[in-house]
Amino acid sequence: MHETDTATPGEAQAATHGYHENKADHLKRLRRIEGQIRGLQRMVEEDAYCIDVLTQVSAATKALQSVALKLLDEHLGHCVSNAIQGGGEDADEKIREASDAIARLVRS
Amino acid sequence: MHETDTATPGEAQAATHGYHENKADHLKRLRRIEGQIRGLQRMVEEDAYCIDVLTQVSAATKALQSVALKLLDEHLGHCVSNAIQGGGEDADEKIREASDAIARLVRS
Amino acid sequence: MHETDTATPGEAQAATHGYHENKADHLKRLRRIEGQIRGLQRMVEEDAYCIDVLTQVSAATKALQSVALKLLDEHLGHCVSNAIQGGGEDADEKIREASDAIARLVRS
Amino acid sequence: MHETDTATPGEAQAATHGYHENKADHLKRLRRIEGQIRGLQRMVEEDAYCIDVLTQVSAATKALQSVALKLLDEHLGHCVSNAIQGGGEDADEKIREASDAIARLVRS
Repeated sequence: MHETDTATPGEAQAATHGYHENKADHLKRLRRIEGQIRGLQRMVEEDAYCIDVLTQVSAATKALQSVALKLLDEHLGHCVSNAIQGGGEDADEKIREASDAIARLVRS
Repeated sequence: MHETDTATPGEAQAATHGYHENKADHLKRLRRIEGQIRGLQRMVEEDAYCIDVLTQVSAATKALQSVALKLLDEHLGHCVSNAIQGGGEDADEKIREASDAIARLVRS
Repeated sequence: MHETDTATPGEAQAATHGYHENKADHLKRLRRIEGQIRGLQRMVEEDAYCIDVLTQVSAATKALQSVALKLLDEHLGHCVSNAIQGGGEDADEKIREASDAIARLVRS
Repeated sequence: MHETDTATPGEAQAATHGYHENKADHLKRLRRIEGQIRGLQRMVEEDAYCIDVLTQVSAATKALQSVALKLLDEHLGHCVSNAIQGGGEDADEKIREASDAIARLVRS
């Protein structure tokens, strides 16, 4: 991903991250979710009807889950794949870590 | 529900909402979630490790669910209870509406 | 369940249960879910492909959630409504209890 | 992946499945869940209190999710890892398939 060998440690690490290529897309989604959360604050301030507030909370939750699923897909396709190709303990560690993250998502 | 007749329509409507009394608490929680979402944007911008981003997404999702569960509890204790005490079609409608909101939460 | 009209206290209580009228429907759904779980055992025994097993687990989970949402809807429309019409501490207790059950569903 | 070439097609396929080694454990868990579902049928038949039925539904749902998370973890550690080590299109396909299964779990 890097053409030069002057990469700082930070860059080198960043380059292995799955979501790196879709950073702009993730930021756009997260800004939209931030907008939804601010909209929720306005609704509560203006005493919007509870059910309407709940509908909007469900929408924001679903949007957050979509971000998580996209990040996870990219993580499997990059970080985890790279570790598996490298082999050894790092591969096991990456899989265990991904499984734990999936469990947190499923249970949240 | 109101003893006085000086309530504006807005106030009258607001007064029936379950979360009215805990408005400050809900707003505080929503502002904290907004902070979590902005934190997520910073993490993505700074190429934080995918798993750390996912952990934070799970935390924000859980926090949103807590807001929803509190809103729903207050909705049942106020709006739905009032409608049931009033009886008639409005009660059925309020229960159906609450069940639909619960289904959206469970499935999101 | 009983042929006689000398209802015991237990029967009187049972009669207030929301799902009483749809008992046959709930049993039918639960038997279908039991069939799905036995199907899962067969799949594992016959070394079916992991992803196919997972797809079937997701289907059974969704079916269980549907049963829960129907039970809850009926519970709100009967037990909780009756308690609210009766008023007093029992109403508060029934709402708290329903909210706790909803929280368990949302988090499971 | 196979040392011998006497494997039947069925065995060859089975051997690539992540959960193969823990088959007995998965079957034990699934039989316990089957028992929970039959217990739910008895509860409904005997007009158990709705909230108690719901608590048991939540327990069965959580048990199913645990089975799914274990299957998925083993799938990543075996099938997906093998495909990634093999490289090529099969690896991409396996990751896409796993991501889709994760999405179904998170949304169910």
